[in-house]
Amino acid sequence: MRLTDSKTEDLITQIEKGTITTVPGVLTASCHCGIRKAKEDFSIVFLPGRTDCSGVFTTNKFAAAPVLVSKKQLAVNHNINAIIVNSGIANACTGRQGIENAEKTVKMAAEYLGIPEQNVLVASTGRIGRQLPLDKIEYGLKYCSSHLSNENGHNTAKAILTIDKHPKEVALKFSYKGNDVYIGGIAKGSVMVEPNMATTLSFTATNAKISHKLLDKLLFECADQTFNCISTDGCQSTNDMALLIANGESGIEITEENTELYNIFKLGLFMVFEDLCAKVVEDGEGATKVIAIKVSGARDKNEARSIGKKVANSILFKAAMYGEDINWGRIAAAIGSFENSIDTSKIDIACGDIFVMKEGMSVEFDEENANRLLKDRHIGFDINLNSGQGFARILTNDITYEYIKLNAFYKKQQ
Amino acid sequence: MRLTDSKTEDLITQIEKGTITTVPGVLTASCHCGIRKAKEDFSIVFLPGRTDCSGVFTTNKFAAAPVLVSKKQLAVNHNINAIIVNSGIANACTGRQGIENAEKTVKMAAEYLGIPEQNVLVASTGRIGRQLPLDKIEYGLKYCSSHLSNENGHNTAKAILTIDKHPKEVALKFSYKGNDVYIGGIAKGSVMVEPNMATTLSFTATNAKISHKLLDKLLFECADQTFNCISTDGCQSTNDMALLIANGESGIEITEENTELYNIFKLGLFMVFEDLCAKVVEDGEGATKVIAIKVSGARDKNEARSIGKKVANSILFKAAMYGEDINWGRIAAAIGSFENSIDTSKIDIACGDIFVMKEGMSVEFDEENANRLLKDRHIGFDINLNSGQGFARILTNDITYEYIKLNAFYKKQQ
Repeated sequence: MRLTDSKTEDLITQIEKGTITTVPGVLTASCHCGIRKAKEDFSIVFLPGRTDCSGVFTTNKFAAAPVLVSKKQLAVNHNINAIIVNSGIANACTGRQGIENAEKTVKMAAEYLGIPEQNVLVASTGRIGRQLPLDKIEYGLKYCSSHLSNENGHNTAKAILTIDKHPKEVALKFSYKGNDVYIGGIAKGSVMVEPNMATTLSFTATNAKISHKLLDKLLFECADQTFNCISTDGCQSTNDMALLIANGESGIEITEENTELYNIFKLGLFMVFEDLCAKVVEDGEGATKVIAIKVSGARDKNEARSIGKKVANSILFKAAMYGEDINWGRIAAAIGSFENSIDTSKIDIACGDIFVMKEGMSVEFDEENANRLLKDRHIGFDINLNSGQGFARILTNDITYEYIKLNAFYKKQQ
Repeated sequence: MRLTDSKTEDLITQIEKGTITTVPGVLTASCHCGIRKAKEDFSIVFLPGRTDCSGVFTTNKFAAAPVLVSKKQLAVNHNINAIIVNSGIANACTGRQGIENAEKTVKMAAEYLGIPEQNVLVASTGRIGRQLPLDKIEYGLKYCSSHLSNENGHNTAKAILTIDKHPKEVALKFSYKGNDVYIGGIAKGSVMVEPNMATTLSFTATNAKISHKLLDKLLFECADQTFNCISTDGCQSTNDMALLIANGESGIEITEENTELYNIFKLGLFMVFEDLCAKVVEDGEGATKVIAIKVSGARDKNEARSIGKKVANSILFKAAMYGEDINWGRIAAAIGSFENSIDTSKIDIACGDIFVMKEGMSVEFDEENANRLLKDRHIGFDINLNSGQGFARILTNDITYEYIKLNAFYKKQQ
């Protein structure tokens, strides 16, 4: 699942069973506040003291109330101590009352946690169009604010899920001048994953100290290559956000770009995001395949990405992958639906190391061998446009009976 | 299924069991030439004498060889006598040899039919990336050229299908100055239906005489409101074309726009296209629902259409429709993924006559009543952006286990 195998990677150690609370100074708590039937549905991620926080948010025009409120908070203050997360209700399309409920959640959280209101962010995930039950939220705040612990990360990773099957969490560390720098994160998402300068719900923390300007840069660049390059179904969520918080607890400070420290940290952050993304795609609803679509030779990165997503979001291609049928014509048709001009006579397509198209036309290949490659859980396609240096790698999955079942009869899973 | 109920409609009569050969002067033949296992897979649509023909073609960058060859033919000559159609092999992504095979088909057809080469068009549908077997094509040409009949329309409507379940055919007539003007057509398509100034495969004929310039206008305008407003899966085909041929056999000539005759004819053509489109959507692979999405109040027609298609192509929305679950948040999320700015606080959404969103936020409604509406085969949603006069109506269907099955295990259906 690595996008890179830079030497720098050797400096970084993955922590076994690592999660967000592996990062020193990060406390979490979670509980069942009653929005959902039984599953835990409420969490607090808490980092006391001075922090810096950056966020990227969904570009959906129906951005949910917690997205609007958290964006507004972050716009004026980067010292964030608490993220309040509920699952089950998205608090999207809820109008003025939805905003008020998100603001009341912020206010109550500040009171229960004894921190300034401006230091609180909120995130929600779940069904659109329902108002948050503030009494249940208050119950969650009351319970969780008195049960914060640095050992609760794993439970919190579970509590933020909706109908994801598996929690997504990871932590890494590297040593710098005798100090250990940690980066740890959790995420949720298995459906409505087609971000656009935004991500699925994810919260990442580090004990490095990083100026807000650099933090923004690190988050945007790493999210762009990871969260913005996955798609499970082409559907964009109203609630997506990725937050990155640095508490400086390690004593290590990143003050400048392109230093050794900056570069190690950036790779580490990239690896954390990449890992969370791979887990989101692997847990795509009903998915049986994880498909990496590499697009090279495009005129630029955006062209590569758009073409990769055309393929990733073709449900005919996804269905062929489920059926383990090397029906590559569906890849060609998807590429061909790209709006701008492309020179189709230069395009090569390979599945693994088997070319199925060269210079825009079919080539003889051993179909049985190709279909055998499709029996693996991990499948790779290479599309080369042979027209420039633009590159992208899109991670997606197949579409299955199970996806239809889960999403046709969603209410029954709640 | 009517987009209009103009008074003019009363002047037009639908012909029972009407098809393309209902139009006087149109002959067809079809046979099993051997590309597919058993089903008829080869046809000729033949209109002897002087004709005028217009066409719209897929904008897919991997446009198939028959699309390229037919476009080239039509660019220099509008007197088309024969359309040669095969199903089973798309002749797409077949390079120079694919073009040569399409050209050889044109040449052989001209010989067997005794007509000039420039009067022949070709169309193919089926699997991408395979070369046409010219011996089988020649067998088909030989057989069909000697079996042309004005009673074969229904068989031809079946022979052009791939894995569509039902043939799509219709014919209408109206009287003008004591003469009967007929319009009849056939179409195929149940998957990869997301045209873009192009259509699924369709062939329509009329016995009116119409100048090529007016014919172009009529075809473009009517196709734009019909074939360009349906989507079964958001996947664009490499082979789509819609051809309209006028043989003038009725003696009635349309020479000017906006005359009474022009307007009746235009409505008739519109009704024919609309009927074929409804049949394509109803026959969408595995579909159990036909969903009309009306978007009004957009700033212009294109905005209305883009937003309608965002909803129509959301597989989460399609899955909810299959599950008969009024999960309208998925409609909002799809609208919100529109790239340009929209004022979400003005948007109303209704299912039938039940409002589920007003001014961008959820409203109280009887969910049971709404879910009851979803039990019908025909479902209607109204989205009002309340921001202008732009209007569009998109016809789509749901996504089901059957769609996945058919397209995952496509090879087995061949």
